[in-house]
Amino acid sequence: MAVYTQVTAEEINAFIAQYDVGEVVSFKGIAEGSENSNYFLQTTEASFILTLFEARVNEADLPFFMGLMDHLNHKDIVCATPVRDRAGNNLKTLCGRPAALITFLNGMAINKPQPEHCRQLGGELARMHLAAADFNMSRANDLSVDGWEKLVADCADGADRCAPGLREILTGEQAFLKDNWPTDLPAGIIHADLFPDNVFFLEGKLSGLIDYYFACNDFLAYDLAVCMNSWCFEADGSFNVTKSTQLLKGYNDVRPLEARELDALPLLCRGAALRFLLTRLYDWLNRVEGALVQVKDPTEYLTKLTFHQGVRNASAYGLDIK
Amino acid sequence: MAVYTQVTAEEINAFIAQYDVGEVVSFKGIAEGSENSNYFLQTTEASFILTLFEARVNEADLPFFMGLMDHLNHKDIVCATPVRDRAGNNLKTLCGRPAALITFLNGMAINKPQPEHCRQLGGELARMHLAAADFNMSRANDLSVDGWEKLVADCADGADRCAPGLREILTGEQAFLKDNWPTDLPAGIIHADLFPDNVFFLEGKLSGLIDYYFACNDFLAYDLAVCMNSWCFEADGSFNVTKSTQLLKGYNDVRPLEARELDALPLLCRGAALRFLLTRLYDWLNRVEGALVQVKDPTEYLTKLTFHQGVRNASAYGLDIK
Repeated sequence: MAVYTQVTAEEINAFIAQYDVGEVVSFKGIAEGSENSNYFLQTTEASFILTLFEARVNEADLPFFMGLMDHLNHKDIVCATPVRDRAGNNLKTLCGRPAALITFLNGMAINKPQPEHCRQLGGELARMHLAAADFNMSRANDLSVDGWEKLVADCADGADRCAPGLREILTGEQAFLKDNWPTDLPAGIIHADLFPDNVFFLEGKLSGLIDYYFACNDFLAYDLAVCMNSWCFEADGSFNVTKSTQLLKGYNDVRPLEARELDALPLLCRGAALRFLLTRLYDWLNRVEGALVQVKDPTEYLTKLTFHQGVRNASAYGLDIK
Repeated sequence: MAVYTQVTAEEINAFIAQYDVGEVVSFKGIAEGSENSNYFLQTTEASFILTLFEARVNEADLPFFMGLMDHLNHKDIVCATPVRDRAGNNLKTLCGRPAALITFLNGMAINKPQPEHCRQLGGELARMHLAAADFNMSRANDLSVDGWEKLVADCADGADRCAPGLREILTGEQAFLKDNWPTDLPAGIIHADLFPDNVFFLEGKLSGLIDYYFACNDFLAYDLAVCMNSWCFEADGSFNVTKSTQLLKGYNDVRPLEARELDALPLLCRGAALRFLLTRLYDWLNRVEGALVQVKDPTEYLTKLTFHQGVRNASAYGLDIK
């Protein structure tokens, strides 16, 4: 929620002069994105987002993200896309930071998604998975099952300060998932962070997905599990099976789910809940009082984890394809 | 540099439906304005800034600010202007805050103004003063000579923590200005905060003035003094007489300065320097570690005050009309 790197009018004019996008008419820092600095930029020809990648992003990953957005855009998946300068570069340097000029996507994130939004999300997610199938780069998911052991170790000492008994829950869940994690599911490129703030709607219709900066290779159904957790729970922690049914149906209509994917869904949902529980807990334990970025509540994801631990089979999520 | 009040897509859609400005296509919080929450809003028809006035703004002053922008706009002074809803209101409530939809002004603030920018600024400031002459509301300047005594008292105890000897300097300067402040100069509506970040340029031409939320009634030449301090000093604290000459010439070409105004300029510049020294010092002494808003350096204005204390007459500023 901040602009970390200040770019002056002089600097942005010189930067934009390297592109074929007209002259700058407006340039304002926007209060979005917790990891990077983002500016809204209008030229005589179009609107853009200028992103400066800050320290938390691994520079070596940037060509993967740029390439993926470019690839998806060519496959008619509506997403923000990096623009190339006259020399053909879509990743440059500005004020000492890696920087990308990204096309502007109309639409707004929805605060309280309804079942119809979930259905549209499912469909677009499946289309994105299919479109990414022939993308020729890859990136490991360092926040999946192999990464949780270290996160649990890093958070163990402080966990009970966040919620009594949390240390034991985390240790037990991580061990359980390590032993039971699926090994043989359809895999490919996933978004991995498709929360409601990364999905735009315009007049009730999904208008695009943003923020591909956690995208990686993993089980396709794991992306669904991330969405189940972030779209299908109510503010009071209750699970809304109507929303999850629509999410799964929307997906299944475009890319039919295999029985083994559905069967794995309770486990994948537990894993996705643990992943966000752990990273939120890590941020919570390492928070700086009064810092620019607000720390999100880890216990929201403890509630979700507990729900999925009680699920016996995937029909609890509302889709039964057998 | 922050959005203090979060507005959801649902809330902004309902709010904008009360105006005749089309449908919302984009809505993003912007990292500008240290006192209020500002959003960039695009509709199917145009671009706007949505401002939510936060606690530090006195609600009773808002009709004055809205009326002034409206008045200036009708007089062809390019400035952001509040839009009226279908019922004719240009000041409404959103998320429990006073809120105004403001027209979007193209252009960018300039980080390092050159003499030519100062000349244009002077001309536009004079045009604004003339255009505001028949505005029928008024607002006292509570940050002028009568307000400094209390600010000095509030800051006295901590002043020397900021700069050794500062308490004595403030007390002495405030007493001197109180005894010598002019009483008989051309007066009217002034902007009172025309720093470079409140002036937009587009392809080298001044494209508009923003942020009228300190506007008030005072000596017109005091507005020039505020600009002299914020536009005509270099980063190293030195005074650039070429810039001040252009500022004064640009102004004088549109609204000829009277001899008594020029004569008073050294005093007015001292007052304007004391005003920003005091408010910055107050914020510095009352800062919260790690807070969203960065505190500006008070001593920058001590350097400027010291310069003006050494000025014997207004010809030091580069304009001699006698």
